[in-house]
Amino acid sequence: MKAKIIVNLKEIVLDPQGETILHSLNEMGYDEIKKVRQGKIFFIEIDESDEEKGRKKLEEIAHKVLSNPVIETYTIEIEK
Amino acid sequence: MKAKIIVNLKEIVLDPQGETILHSLNEMGYDEIKKVRQGKIFFIEIDESDEEKGRKKLEEIAHKVLSNPVIETYTIEIEK
Repeated sequence: MKAKIIVNLKEIVLDPQGETILHSLNEMGYDEIKKVRQGKIFFIEIDESDEEKGRKKLEEIAHKVLSNPVIETYTIEIEK
Repeated sequence: MKAKIIVNLKEIVLDPQGETILHSLNEMGYDEIKKVRQGKIFFIEIDESDEEKGRKKLEEIAHKVLSNPVIETYTIEIEK
């Protein structure tokens, strides 16, 4: 089974990297870009045929290992 | 208009960060995890109502600014 775990900063947390990219783009003439936020994406292969069990494991991993729940949120997308 | 640009390493390029996470997970007992690759995701707001034009701008930005086309590929997802 393949899955994606997307980790992004909570909306209330500042994202200096995204801000820097936004300003660079605006300076380059891309004035139509109004907001940039950067996140992480993990492409994962898991040896588990039961989707429910797989999702549970991925939830654990996302929460414990891949994200910092204080400042980040995550979403899990299972590929069929 | 909102969009996501996902930048990931080409399959032939080594991903030491992903490898490290994979080994850590396996050591922690998550033996069912077989592969981890890490990428970047950018959440973008663009002031452009024409989807075709917006996508063209985002293609330019993804190619010129957000990715290194030698080692990375990107995909653009427009949110309706």
